[in-house]
Amino acid sequence: MSARTAPVGAARALARCEALAGLTSMAGGLERVSLSPEHRAANAMVGDWMREAGLTVWQDAAGNVCGRLEGERDGLPALVLGSHLDTVTDAGRYDGMLGVLLAIEVADRLEAGTLPFALELIGFTDEEGTRFGNALFGSRAFAGKVGEAWLATPDRKGVTVRQAMTEFGLDSDRIGDAARRPEDLVGYLETHIEQGPHLLDADRALGVVTSIAGARRFALQVTGRAGHAGGTPYARRRDALVAAAEIVVAIERISIETRTIGTVGRIRAFPGGVNVVPGAARFSLDLRAETDAARDAAFDRIDAFAREVCERRGVAWRHDEFYRADTTTCDPALVAAVEAGVRATGDGDPMRIWSRAGHDGMAVADVTGVAMLFLRCGNDGISHHPDETVTEADTAAALDAFEATVQAVAAQRRA
Amino acid sequence: MSARTAPVGAARALARCEALAGLTSMAGGLERVSLSPEHRAANAMVGDWMREAGLTVWQDAAGNVCGRLEGERDGLPALVLGSHLDTVTDAGRYDGMLGVLLAIEVADRLEAGTLPFALELIGFTDEEGTRFGNALFGSRAFAGKVGEAWLATPDRKGVTVRQAMTEFGLDSDRIGDAARRPEDLVGYLETHIEQGPHLLDADRALGVVTSIAGARRFALQVTGRAGHAGGTPYARRRDALVAAAEIVVAIERISIETRTIGTVGRIRAFPGGVNVVPGAARFSLDLRAETDAARDAAFDRIDAFAREVCERRGVAWRHDEFYRADTTTCDPALVAAVEAGVRATGDGDPMRIWSRAGHDGMAVADVTGVAMLFLRCGNDGISHHPDETVTEADTAAALDAFEATVQAVAAQRRA
Repeated sequence: MSARTAPVGAARALARCEALAGLTSMAGGLERVSLSPEHRAANAMVGDWMREAGLTVWQDAAGNVCGRLEGERDGLPALVLGSHLDTVTDAGRYDGMLGVLLAIEVADRLEAGTLPFALELIGFTDEEGTRFGNALFGSRAFAGKVGEAWLATPDRKGVTVRQAMTEFGLDSDRIGDAARRPEDLVGYLETHIEQGPHLLDADRALGVVTSIAGARRFALQVTGRAGHAGGTPYARRRDALVAAAEIVVAIERISIETRTIGTVGRIRAFPGGVNVVPGAARFSLDLRAETDAARDAAFDRIDAFAREVCERRGVAWRHDEFYRADTTTCDPALVAAVEAGVRATGDGDPMRIWSRAGHDGMAVADVTGVAMLFLRCGNDGISHHPDETVTEADTAAALDAFEATVQAVAAQRRA
Repeated sequence: MSARTAPVGAARALARCEALAGLTSMAGGLERVSLSPEHRAANAMVGDWMREAGLTVWQDAAGNVCGRLEGERDGLPALVLGSHLDTVTDAGRYDGMLGVLLAIEVADRLEAGTLPFALELIGFTDEEGTRFGNALFGSRAFAGKVGEAWLATPDRKGVTVRQAMTEFGLDSDRIGDAARRPEDLVGYLETHIEQGPHLLDADRALGVVTSIAGARRFALQVTGRAGHAGGTPYARRRDALVAAAEIVVAIERISIETRTIGTVGRIRAFPGGVNVVPGAARFSLDLRAETDAARDAAFDRIDAFAREVCERRGVAWRHDEFYRADTTTCDPALVAAVEAGVRATGDGDPMRIWSRAGHDGMAVADVTGVAMLFLRCGNDGISHHPDETVTEADTAAALDAFEATVQAVAAQRRA
């Protein structure tokens, strides 16, 4: 069954991305959220592939699927390779999944008992936060950072994480069992598609990630007063949606001016009648930048603008931060190993890049050093979209570089 | 049971508004949509009250509840008094309902066999269009204007009008039975709250409606391209929501400049992930004005602006008109009767007003002359909101004026 040459490994990883894409809750598209029947099926499928690669497999207390290959002796600290298996709504087929599948290919190329550390693989659940709004659930649990408030978070149907865990067959009281101790870990390495056009523009297949930008996410709300669309003259309107629309337009302008990245992905007007002036508008803001200081300064400008708009319009403004992750700097020794891994593929001087997207490594960094290898996206760098794509040649290069990275870490340990 | 003096009649009508407000599908608020269990309960309750007032009661083929009091001889053409019994979401207690209940009080004051026409009462279903998007279903059926396309319209759960009629116990193939012939009708009179602040500002309890403004309603859509919030640089974004937000802001500006009334009551971004650049935005537009020409010119400006925005942003613009009603001019003889009715209450020279809101009379005008009596709203004229209110004194004045209007029509017929 096992492929022993790089092209076969990459082709198999890509074929497995297709197989995983079939595990979806969305007609005609891909959506696989945390603690769902599709999540269960994905863990089973990925667990089988890990076993085929020679690993011992288990599902941890957070619903992450895990595998382990012992090193030169049993019970050594582990170098963890992984990514996530959940998706956004109407997702692409590579974001997350490809990283897990390339880790399996790396493991498939290695023999038990040959490395100066154990090799562990992990397929994290709920990196995206699609279902419960809170991202990085699986990796936060890995780092021992999931508390009561998180477990009480409801999805859109009112089902809490705790209830969903019970339905999934997990015991939420034992979530702490998913936490890993720093002394049991060597580090964490993740291969991921870039989800942007920077490698494409630079004509490079691979990139070495130096830091992962933090994001802040807010639930924004404007509260005005509902009224009859015909009967409410403009001077008396307190239209929450027009105020929100002014703010949405300003978020784009301020983000461009400050070289930060602000996105409004959700919006609703209430009560939502065609012939009713909206009395409330709720919308989201995802804000990120190369530095936390730039991001925070941009938010202050957005907030000041929104206050001004809402005061002028006689409506109320409110923002609730529901997610915050500061910038994660990758571990220098692991970054050096990834660079050595890329050099080993003959791709020349490795390109360094900062990740505009958040990744599980941000959470894992609380318990061990992390580094990432980026792989070029096609289609203008599009991601979080069905048009997300990679080439087989780039995937093969990533697999070789990823394997060489693991060997570089082994060489560091032996030195 | 019957009250024989005006204050008692008004007090009873207001108490009945409270009773009807209990028939709701919304926890903590009022929502009663067409062809629902609450609609059925409202028809039963109103039917009982009509019977108490001495009327013969039936439910027609569209689900309108109807009552009839014969005139000087059986089978005479009918003067119809009515309004609607459905509501918007999180509605007030008077919009529609009060007009039906005041018609019952008028009927209660009259004896069978005394008028030169039959008196009919009607509680229309689905004036608001809350459930299926299409307004005026009951009154369009009364006018024989409900066709196949209308019956095939689905609600948000995919249930069509036809399926909902079957579940309600109606035979959609017999919808034509609800249609009335012009020769069987004398005219249609409706009392309704103003749903605006004009009577309040003029310090007048009552207003005589001269015309009902037509509205056009559009489903608007911007289609861009979804992408990862972090990974998609601004130069490559095709953010549908920011374009839609620019259009929402412009709709307000253009409406004010053209003295028309434009309202965006609904909006959604798709796919709707917090960390996904919206690939599509769908929103609604309700547009009305004193004249059809002014309204249509305003739409052309909005459309031109939207095309410009979407071209600049590299996204696609689309508008689908799903409802259109042109301005309805009230019948001069019936308007004179309403004026006589208002004068009879001692309120002096009647105030004339055009209705910014749509009403069932717009549909009924296809088969008989229509006129309306407006009643002052409190609370700044707010409507389509739980704070909608009227005073008992104004309600009593409206009842007296409404009864006197019926007598004025009788006098016209006898003249």
